[in-house]
Amino acid sequence: MSSDSGTRDPKAIAQVKAALAAKFGNRLVTSLAVRQQHANTITWIENQPPDAVVYPQSTEEVQDIVRICSSHRVPVIPFGTGTSLEGHVNAPFGGVSIDFRDMNQVLAVHPEDLDCVIQPGLTRKALNEYLRDQGVFFPIDPGADASLGGMASTRASGTNAVRYGTMKDNVLALKVVLANGEVMSTARRAKKTSAGYDLTRLIVGAEGTLGIITELTLRLSGIPEAISGGICPFPSVDACCKAAIQTIQTGIPVARIELLDALQVRAVNLYSKLTLRETPMLFLEFHGTEGSVAEQSERFGEIAEELGGGPFEWTLRPEERTKLWEARHNAAFSTFTLRPGSSMIPTDVCVPISRLAECVAETQADIAESGLIAPIVGHVGDGNFHLTLLVDMNDPEEIKVAKAFNERLVQRALAMDGTCTGEHGVGQGKMKYLEAEHGLPALEAMRAVKRALDPDGIMNPGKIV
Amino acid sequence: MSSDSGTRDPKAIAQVKAALAAKFGNRLVTSLAVRQQHANTITWIENQPPDAVVYPQSTEEVQDIVRICSSHRVPVIPFGTGTSLEGHVNAPFGGVSIDFRDMNQVLAVHPEDLDCVIQPGLTRKALNEYLRDQGVFFPIDPGADASLGGMASTRASGTNAVRYGTMKDNVLALKVVLANGEVMSTARRAKKTSAGYDLTRLIVGAEGTLGIITELTLRLSGIPEAISGGICPFPSVDACCKAAIQTIQTGIPVARIELLDALQVRAVNLYSKLTLRETPMLFLEFHGTEGSVAEQSERFGEIAEELGGGPFEWTLRPEERTKLWEARHNAAFSTFTLRPGSSMIPTDVCVPISRLAECVAETQADIAESGLIAPIVGHVGDGNFHLTLLVDMNDPEEIKVAKAFNERLVQRALAMDGTCTGEHGVGQGKMKYLEAEHGLPALEAMRAVKRALDPDGIMNPGKIV
Repeated sequence: MSSDSGTRDPKAIAQVKAALAAKFGNRLVTSLAVRQQHANTITWIENQPPDAVVYPQSTEEVQDIVRICSSHRVPVIPFGTGTSLEGHVNAPFGGVSIDFRDMNQVLAVHPEDLDCVIQPGLTRKALNEYLRDQGVFFPIDPGADASLGGMASTRASGTNAVRYGTMKDNVLALKVVLANGEVMSTARRAKKTSAGYDLTRLIVGAEGTLGIITELTLRLSGIPEAISGGICPFPSVDACCKAAIQTIQTGIPVARIELLDALQVRAVNLYSKLTLRETPMLFLEFHGTEGSVAEQSERFGEIAEELGGGPFEWTLRPEERTKLWEARHNAAFSTFTLRPGSSMIPTDVCVPISRLAECVAETQADIAESGLIAPIVGHVGDGNFHLTLLVDMNDPEEIKVAKAFNERLVQRALAMDGTCTGEHGVGQGKMKYLEAEHGLPALEAMRAVKRALDPDGIMNPGKIV
Repeated sequence: MSSDSGTRDPKAIAQVKAALAAKFGNRLVTSLAVRQQHANTITWIENQPPDAVVYPQSTEEVQDIVRICSSHRVPVIPFGTGTSLEGHVNAPFGGVSIDFRDMNQVLAVHPEDLDCVIQPGLTRKALNEYLRDQGVFFPIDPGADASLGGMASTRASGTNAVRYGTMKDNVLALKVVLANGEVMSTARRAKKTSAGYDLTRLIVGAEGTLGIITELTLRLSGIPEAISGGICPFPSVDACCKAAIQTIQTGIPVARIELLDALQVRAVNLYSKLTLRETPMLFLEFHGTEGSVAEQSERFGEIAEELGGGPFEWTLRPEERTKLWEARHNAAFSTFTLRPGSSMIPTDVCVPISRLAECVAETQADIAESGLIAPIVGHVGDGNFHLTLLVDMNDPEEIKVAKAFNERLVQRALAMDGTCTGEHGVGQGKMKYLEAEHGLPALEAMRAVKRALDPDGIMNPGKIV
């Protein structure tokens, strides 16, 4: 599965490696095992290792790396925790992987301003651990304990985006090393600004193709005084989606509203030895004061009942909430129980919420027709859902069927005014859909921006555009 | 005050006018009066009229205009309602003003998705009038009844950005005519996406310098079930700011939290014949259920009291709320009472909220030392405040003093990690601060993006970069 043949100019690579070795000593690693770990390892996208991995400790060191690589036109690929799903960290043209393992510090916390300044290698869980006693937290939760630099780069979101937004809403400013080796600060710490082009949002979601993030100023949220959570069965996915729409329309500020389809509930029952009814379910969480979360929960219960769902079991107590949410927490791990020995290939699309039920229903029918096994988890408040395709990677025919299914899934989402990826990003895997999604003028505009900021194409080439 | 000498190439302009006249008939206007109305008229920035004004009725017509102008390298300047404050609509190099008066339709409303599709000439009040019976509204309120295309272009916000965000958060997708005459769609209607560069946010705030917005998909919000509002006096601006910080830190989802300084309260008393205590005041609004807004209001009252402020007078009744808020509503109009006959020059900066009290205090001291009259209104939840400078425009010496004061105001905000404009935009007036604010690498990145998308520099030239 591993391809080590991407390097374009062996001489340039050798010179870069020598220059980096002189500067970084044993913080430059070139063993095949380490290089392979720094390429895609978690989906069916081929492993394309970089030529070397380097571990910088400061923005200045990242500038040095970029300058050395740039002068030899050798690619640079930023690396966080390697949990991206569409081949973002692969090195199809070789180059140097910049691993931010050693740049994982919290540089400042400003509780009054509800922001903090951090290094890109810090993971979201480590940040929240650090913030724990200060009454604030960073809300974005994409599942994996990803690095915050990586989350910004893929415009990550996750279970509570319906209330707290995505990375685009929670990054205030970035420090970015550009292709020319200079450092750009995209914005100040002010909460809003109209002072010029939104460079912050241009870099968020650019997957390292326009520059390398070396510092992030993140928006924090106050830890809610009270949290209520619970689960609610429904007769159909359609009823789940209608409940989500009505909840949001009536202004209930739901913090999490997650769909598990019947198959996913079954996986969790198998995995966690639970006895949940194997029917579509919503998992909900409400944040606020005690009075307000109780009110929100009761109102949601009424909506559910009107739609033939319920009963909505909810609680304010953390232990009980965790227990009720166990099925959701274990969803990712439980899936393999449906087909032990298979590989789990996650995919993600997002549509306007009014089309979500239709999109999920058509997708379920397609799964059945294709003979695939693929449970569904959805961030229904955003119209975003994931499938985990359980594929036997030793069966080329089955891989072909699964890939064709994935293709149809994306086309279905696009036909419903949706997007080929709600939160996983483009990487290598979804490049081919960008023209269908955005149209040629928009894609050409992206390419023009790319050429403007990275004329030699050394910043994570072969991704997005 | 009017300068009509910016045109670079009279022959090119004549050819463009002839081509546009053939196509648009009496929808092309070249009278000086109309041209002057389409340049800056509301601040001390010089009036620089375009060579012609044209009124398109469709995206295709905008494409035609851009193609005609582009082939002669004649500038195009989009025009909404002309309420921008930093010379955004001026034509320093001549060119054609594209007035969106006739493109003011609501094209679609999707209540289930909480979005709508509109034309750029529609104003925010007209949109909300249209939406009135559908249980949804568009929250951004910059004061003026601006066009939504203009609001997107300047990244407008206003009184309730603290809860609903700015235009960057409430534009889902745009249709944009590019410098080459092609139409780009920046995104689909899905609520979130990770599919490539964020072209939507690149155009929002670009002030027409990267392309011309011809259609907007906007995010809507559910009309809150209940609104409470009220006013609260404080012993100092510092106490006001502390109250705002604590309110937000404790997670009270305040919808509006507006500061009026003592001088502004005085202006309102004079204008509206009120007898408010002439001390710094906060005007607040809470949105939610009846129970929740009552709880929010009570909690705010407690915070105010602890800080030596109060009593917080609030109500759930619309008539009483309007009455309590009268002072805030009339702030903009009332200011002239402090100096009848003078001109009102608004300016705006934004700092991290922890620095706001300090920034306002230093600014008030500077006003006093400069012998100026300039009441302050602040969107304190965002750290954003406005001054209205009351200037005798016939006194060059006074204008000089006021301009020097404005300069110091911006430098003060920048020194506090703030921005030269929180919501008015750059236009011509604040271009000179961009390098100090962003640093040269970021400014150069903006220029590179500008050149990439507008190589001939015909899109609203002389603004931002």
